[in-house]
Amino acid sequence: MNKAKVLLEALPYIQKFHNKIFVIKYGGHAMIDENAKNYTAQDIVLLKYVGIKPVIVHGGGPEINRAMEKFGKKPEFIHGLRVTDEETLNIVEMVLTGKINGEIVSRIFKFGGKAVGLSGKSGRIILAKKKRKFIEKDGKKVEVDLGRVGETVEINTELLDILINNNYIPVISPIGIDEKGDAYNLNADTVAGDIASALKAEKLILITDVDGIMEDINDPSTVYKKLTVSDVKRLLKEGKIKGGMIPKVECAIKALESGGVKSVHIINGKIPHALLVEIFTEEGIGTMITKK
Amino acid sequence: MNKAKVLLEALPYIQKFHNKIFVIKYGGHAMIDENAKNYTAQDIVLLKYVGIKPVIVHGGGPEINRAMEKFGKKPEFIHGLRVTDEETLNIVEMVLTGKINGEIVSRIFKFGGKAVGLSGKSGRIILAKKKRKFIEKDGKKVEVDLGRVGETVEINTELLDILINNNYIPVISPIGIDEKGDAYNLNADTVAGDIASALKAEKLILITDVDGIMEDINDPSTVYKKLTVSDVKRLLKEGKIKGGMIPKVECAIKALESGGVKSVHIINGKIPHALLVEIFTEEGIGTMITKK
Amino acid sequence: MNKAKVLLEALPYIQKFHNKIFVIKYGGHAMIDENAKNYTAQDIVLLKYVGIKPVIVHGGGPEINRAMEKFGKKPEFIHGLRVTDEETLNIVEMVLTGKINGEIVSRIFKFGGKAVGLSGKSGRIILAKKKRKFIEKDGKKVEVDLGRVGETVEINTELLDILINNNYIPVISPIGIDEKGDAYNLNADTVAGDIASALKAEKLILITDVDGIMEDINDPSTVYKKLTVSDVKRLLKEGKIKGGMIPKVECAIKALESGGVKSVHIINGKIPHALLVEIFTEEGIGTMITKK
Amino acid sequence: MNKAKVLLEALPYIQKFHNKIFVIKYGGHAMIDENAKNYTAQDIVLLKYVGIKPVIVHGGGPEINRAMEKFGKKPEFIHGLRVTDEETLNIVEMVLTGKINGEIVSRIFKFGGKAVGLSGKSGRIILAKKKRKFIEKDGKKVEVDLGRVGETVEINTELLDILINNNYIPVISPIGIDEKGDAYNLNADTVAGDIASALKAEKLILITDVDGIMEDINDPSTVYKKLTVSDVKRLLKEGKIKGGMIPKVECAIKALESGGVKSVHIINGKIPHALLVEIFTEEGIGTMITKK
Amino acid sequence: MNKAKVLLEALPYIQKFHNKIFVIKYGGHAMIDENAKNYTAQDIVLLKYVGIKPVIVHGGGPEINRAMEKFGKKPEFIHGLRVTDEETLNIVEMVLTGKINGEIVSRIFKFGGKAVGLSGKSGRIILAKKKRKFIEKDGKKVEVDLGRVGETVEINTELLDILINNNYIPVISPIGIDEKGDAYNLNADTVAGDIASALKAEKLILITDVDGIMEDINDPSTVYKKLTVSDVKRLLKEGKIKGGMIPKVECAIKALESGGVKSVHIINGKIPHALLVEIFTEEGIGTMITKK
Amino acid sequence: MNKAKVLLEALPYIQKFHNKIFVIKYGGHAMIDENAKNYTAQDIVLLKYVGIKPVIVHGGGPEINRAMEKFGKKPEFIHGLRVTDEETLNIVEMVLTGKINGEIVSRIFKFGGKAVGLSGKSGRIILAKKKRKFIEKDGKKVEVDLGRVGETVEINTELLDILINNNYIPVISPIGIDEKGDAYNLNADTVAGDIASALKAEKLILITDVDGIMEDINDPSTVYKKLTVSDVKRLLKEGKIKGGMIPKVECAIKALESGGVKSVHIINGKIPHALLVEIFTEEGIGTMITKK
Repeated sequence: MNKAKVLLEALPYIQKFHNKIFVIKYGGHAMIDENAKNYTAQDIVLLKYVGIKPVIVHGGGPEINRAMEKFGKKPEFIHGLRVTDEETLNIVEMVLTGKINGEIVSRIFKFGGKAVGLSGKSGRIILAKKKRKFIEKDGKKVEVDLGRVGETVEINTELLDILINNNYIPVISPIGIDEKGDAYNLNADTVAGDIASALKAEKLILITDVDGIMEDINDPSTVYKKLTVSDVKRLLKEGKIKGGMIPKVECAIKALESGGVKSVHIINGKIPHALLVEIFTEEGIGTMITKK
Repeated sequence: MNKAKVLLEALPYIQKFHNKIFVIKYGGHAMIDENAKNYTAQDIVLLKYVGIKPVIVHGGGPEINRAMEKFGKKPEFIHGLRVTDEETLNIVEMVLTGKINGEIVSRIFKFGGKAVGLSGKSGRIILAKKKRKFIEKDGKKVEVDLGRVGETVEINTELLDILINNNYIPVISPIGIDEKGDAYNLNADTVAGDIASALKAEKLILITDVDGIMEDINDPSTVYKKLTVSDVKRLLKEGKIKGGMIPKVECAIKALESGGVKSVHIINGKIPHALLVEIFTEEGIGTMITKK
Repeated sequence: MNKAKVLLEALPYIQKFHNKIFVIKYGGHAMIDENAKNYTAQDIVLLKYVGIKPVIVHGGGPEINRAMEKFGKKPEFIHGLRVTDEETLNIVEMVLTGKINGEIVSRIFKFGGKAVGLSGKSGRIILAKKKRKFIEKDGKKVEVDLGRVGETVEINTELLDILINNNYIPVISPIGIDEKGDAYNLNADTVAGDIASALKAEKLILITDVDGIMEDINDPSTVYKKLTVSDVKRLLKEGKIKGGMIPKVECAIKALESGGVKSVHIINGKIPHALLVEIFTEEGIGTMITKK
Repeated sequence: MNKAKVLLEALPYIQKFHNKIFVIKYGGHAMIDENAKNYTAQDIVLLKYVGIKPVIVHGGGPEINRAMEKFGKKPEFIHGLRVTDEETLNIVEMVLTGKINGEIVSRIFKFGGKAVGLSGKSGRIILAKKKRKFIEKDGKKVEVDLGRVGETVEINTELLDILINNNYIPVISPIGIDEKGDAYNLNADTVAGDIASALKAEKLILITDVDGIMEDINDPSTVYKKLTVSDVKRLLKEGKIKGGMIPKVECAIKALESGGVKSVHIINGKIPHALLVEIFTEEGIGTMITKK
Repeated sequence: MNKAKVLLEALPYIQKFHNKIFVIKYGGHAMIDENAKNYTAQDIVLLKYVGIKPVIVHGGGPEINRAMEKFGKKPEFIHGLRVTDEETLNIVEMVLTGKINGEIVSRIFKFGGKAVGLSGKSGRIILAKKKRKFIEKDGKKVEVDLGRVGETVEINTELLDILINNNYIPVISPIGIDEKGDAYNLNADTVAGDIASALKAEKLILITDVDGIMEDINDPSTVYKKLTVSDVKRLLKEGKIKGGMIPKVECAIKALESGGVKSVHIINGKIPHALLVEIFTEEGIGTMITKK
Repeated sequence: MNKAKVLLEALPYIQKFHNKIFVIKYGGHAMIDENAKNYTAQDIVLLKYVGIKPVIVHGGGPEINRAMEKFGKKPEFIHGLRVTDEETLNIVEMVLTGKINGEIVSRIFKFGGKAVGLSGKSGRIILAKKKRKFIEKDGKKVEVDLGRVGETVEINTELLDILINNNYIPVISPIGIDEKGDAYNLNADTVAGDIASALKAEKLILITDVDGIMEDINDPSTVYKKLTVSDVKRLLKEGKIKGGMIPKVECAIKALESGGVKSVHIINGKIPHALLVEIFTEEGIGTMITKK
């Protein structure tokens, strides 16, 4: 009977999110632990079966570094910026599309879901272009060639719509393709935000290895449960959001302001079943950002 | 996190029963208590939202008696058998289709489900004919005219299929219609079994006011958790199944043996959320009967 | 050959109304006579088979009174206005949804049509709210609580569209439901008008027990054959339209002016096959009201 | 009210034939009179609007002869059999597909129907081959080359199904095409029978200029109202069916025995609205042949 | 390997025109030669199979004259303008719909395509009206009755859309029908332009017996390969476009300016496979006119 | 005009193979040369645009070896058989799914096609199990554990059907998944054959680096143009088919005999546009094997 109660407590959320798309970014650092990977995969399958439509975007940080080492490939820098040459891109693609992507697909399959692993090149999902980067040097603006680093030109949802409507869970690696057929490596958080906007997703959920946006970055008890876009902008201005969290909240703001996404969630993938707790309870477990 | 665990324990059942039809008989005696009615309605809505297709059949026992009294209608008997004359049938229809059916529809709506209340006459769902009853009198077989009591000739699933495929929950009162357009009152348990067979339902669930089939009818701790059809036949032969339970197990046997229903469940509607516990836990709460 | 001529005279009307929706209000007083009921049911089936899409809304006046008497329920009045308490609403629902609705369904079935009887609660067809009534008392406006009397908030056509497109004839009782799941009794003429507007019906046909709008209410030869909305407004102002006809023409005006209904017809259900004569002949048999 | 009665007398037939296909052969001799042509076109439009699916096949006898005269083309005979040379075939196609077919299409359009005129070559409806004809000469069997006279190899219903399901009335001229793309002239009665069989038509109706099969060919009062296939076979054996009626009853027998057609009707197109009277009245107006 | 190269050279055109509609006017003078007819039919079938949707409109000039002679019908003129009386219209329809149309259908079938021959009366494709013609006489504008000569009121694409979507190639003769069901003869070039506009065709291709628009009408080497609408208007003003080419370029201008057609091509049907060369090569073979 | 001729010579093949599925195995050795890769990608796009449905399966031989070297991974052998341990499988997946697959997708995209790169794990396309291998040792049969080498249990065509019907070109790497979610490396030729059988493909085309099956392996002029299954079996028996060709012809025999594939082709990917020449010319360029 206790079990029944828990199920019924989830009912309002299940009803509210019925047939809605959730884009879940499932990151490098959150994927190291075997248990964490299983929790997330299982949670995703549950979401699918209670009527939500999950779309997965993944990154690959630490694994890419390890593969590069194995390949004896040294990181290259220009003006302190990391450069992605052709060979590095090959390694990135192999790790992202050939390893991490497949692992997620297998794990979702293991828990009873039907996933389809896709590079962003397939079906031209991520139409990209070379990202141009400028730095200041000797008081002048100088362009730095970062190599095969790209940014989104357009998300083509045709293939994703077909797969979603046929009850598959798309699992996408952040590799884009330009009009000439050349590949680029993109930032996974940004791609997740772009895809959430293009699919008019209800939620964008960024699974990380921290507990959310915190007042004091060293004290998890200071996690902000709910923030609005203007709260986040203020915290940015006040310098309270730092480091790797900055690009995350920037893509959150973009998805909420111009993409029609209803809420963005930043949660800690190391907490068992953080995804379910965040979605199916009033109090949640990480930080939820809404437009207003 | 405890909540997440409960949800995940339900996952294998949700997966197994995805898109399956459950016919739920929701009886007279199980419907007196306001709480019990709410529990059941809420459970049905949850089933719908996690991907199961519930179809409700209801009876009306005690309410019909009260209405007849109010109308000053005295029960009529021939040879000890109750007779349903035209006026009684009118009262039965008013109570079943006009009152109980509407109450269930309202309650499902209240908890967020989309229900459609239907008499078995609508769309000719229950094609019926007059039930012929014979008794022994002075050593001879004599027919007794029980009036407007009917039995199923055929279940027409067209309308039900349309409603189910459009995500409605059909709520059906056990009134049938014959080829000439005359109405009949049918036994709700039997109708539920017939509809379960016609829809090739996964489960037929009979919600009653007892805890299941019991070794000792006065000791709920003696409930049989799982029985096969041959177990039930043996218990019938041994006289261990008695009274109102006999027609229930008879329709269970029929649905399992010839209708392709996978399991029949007899549960106690007075136990809060018995429906969910029976469906989503290994141990269950009432009696489950399977073919083998 | 004479028969062929009659069929061919009907052809232009059949062509004109092909695939059009006709909402037919089929009233309490027009339903007392067994012949009248059969005529109307048969006419409805014919309409369906020649390609028109009939939707039936019914009232129940006299039958409700008789049932209330039988139940020993005395009408209650406040400031001269009838009050619908909970128990009265129950009786109203039983008679409308449980008796009259089922009778119409049976009769349509008898003549070969496929009907589906529905309370307005099903599929939330009639979303209603409590009707607020104000009277003048001692020069002040005072609200009177009429109990469970409702008015339309919104007609939800999803279920009706599904049934109509699958060739069923919906038969609707004027019971509405509010957001909390509470039921209300609504005026059947008004509901018919609201449904006609929501379905963008070609015609709204009110079957009554008088011959139409008459210059002299006691002289059927003074029936107005055709009126425009402005004619009707003038007749109302001149006091020539009285009593129960007033709400009928009010809902007619609303349906024509804001609902996109092409014409409203008021005909006498006691005249055999008045429905067919009104629809399939140039001269008609009752009063037709058009926008201009 | 009289009109209503007639409409309602037609109702059982309308119900019975709802969505059924009627193949109507509409012949040369029955098409000379302007009134007769209008009657038939109007009747066909009525059939369409009350839910029947008419398919028209036409011949062209007398008009072809007139056109040949105009073209100064003399009939050619070998061993007493008429030969269709290339030029004659051209004239036949021009008259059938270019004149008579278009006239029928126009007339159906005039009465409000949507017709599509088709040669049997279009969409390869009539796959044909050269008809081989043998005669006895000097005690030996000798083949006579009748030129471009064909017989059906196969009816391809794809195009007809598409048109029928999109509510068009196909009007087909009996020109066939062989695998090499060469055209042939076929007998219109036979083609009508073949198409009725291929479409699994409910009825095949042959409109001629006689009142049906008669006991005494000179006395229309001796028309057989209903015959079975075995009756017809007996009448053939007894020599009571003669001349042009013989191929008609032969194709009737074939359509009934092997094609699944339910009934074949032979009616007189000169009688106003013979088609409607035959279909919508119990007594009919011509001869109806059924399997048993 | 040379073959592969040619196929691959065609690929960009095949990709560009995938699923696009091409309306091809296939004229009288271009159809006299047996080889020319075969080339064009074969080219059309190829277009269809590589994913283009061809729609054919044909004229019939010389064949009509020959048929009129055969019928002993003398051309009638009023004020120097040819008059189409009822009998002439009959001959025109017979030749266009009954002969030329059928020939094209047969030829397409022979090369493996599925064509449907249609008069513009079928499915009311060409809704027409009488064309009014005024001349100047004695300084006054006087109307001349040209008889059954019509002009397009509206193209009804429903039937064409159905056929195209079901992979048929419609072949249309330029006969129109007015609201009363009367037929008219229309100019084939104009009809082709109207149909191209109504179908939002990619290309309108006019197959003639000249090499295109030429600087010097006697020197094929002076063919303009590409012209814009303003070029054509200038050439018209300069009197460089003469005779039968004038109405062709007028319908081209209309289709390009108001119909959304992307390009109009004028090519010489006597050049083997001119259609393929024009479509699948950069240089083309006739004159291509574009908006800009 | 010469170009037109070539296109028309291809027409019969285009017609014959319209809407047919071709499974193309595109191998490791055939993919080294940049030109060869471009030829094949371009040919595949052409096939798609002329109405054929290509499905690509690829291997990866030489690239896998190079990657293993780079990773410092030494090949492991047991009893002379190569063993695929977990780490090797990871490298295989990275190279196949993460590198080669993506390259093919990019290249098809570059030439204008829509490809979707898929591991056989996605959508459970390749349900696999561990391949058991037995060797003879000391006169006894001993099982050797080859690690993560698998064989097909079942091809699940659902995802492929969806992609093909939506005009995508699936590109599949030969990685399978077992019921528990574990991955296996499979032989690409065998997988291609299994997929061709499951999809009821018209053709299975194996692109290799030799010219076909040859009488004398060193003399390309001795290529067998056409062989039947029984020819191939005879050549096998005679020892004329050797080495890597043996598994290829074995999967060819299986696909032809039990899979319903119509023909298997073995062609040399180094010959420019070998694919088009083999498909669109009578003489072909490699070896075609048919059932009879």
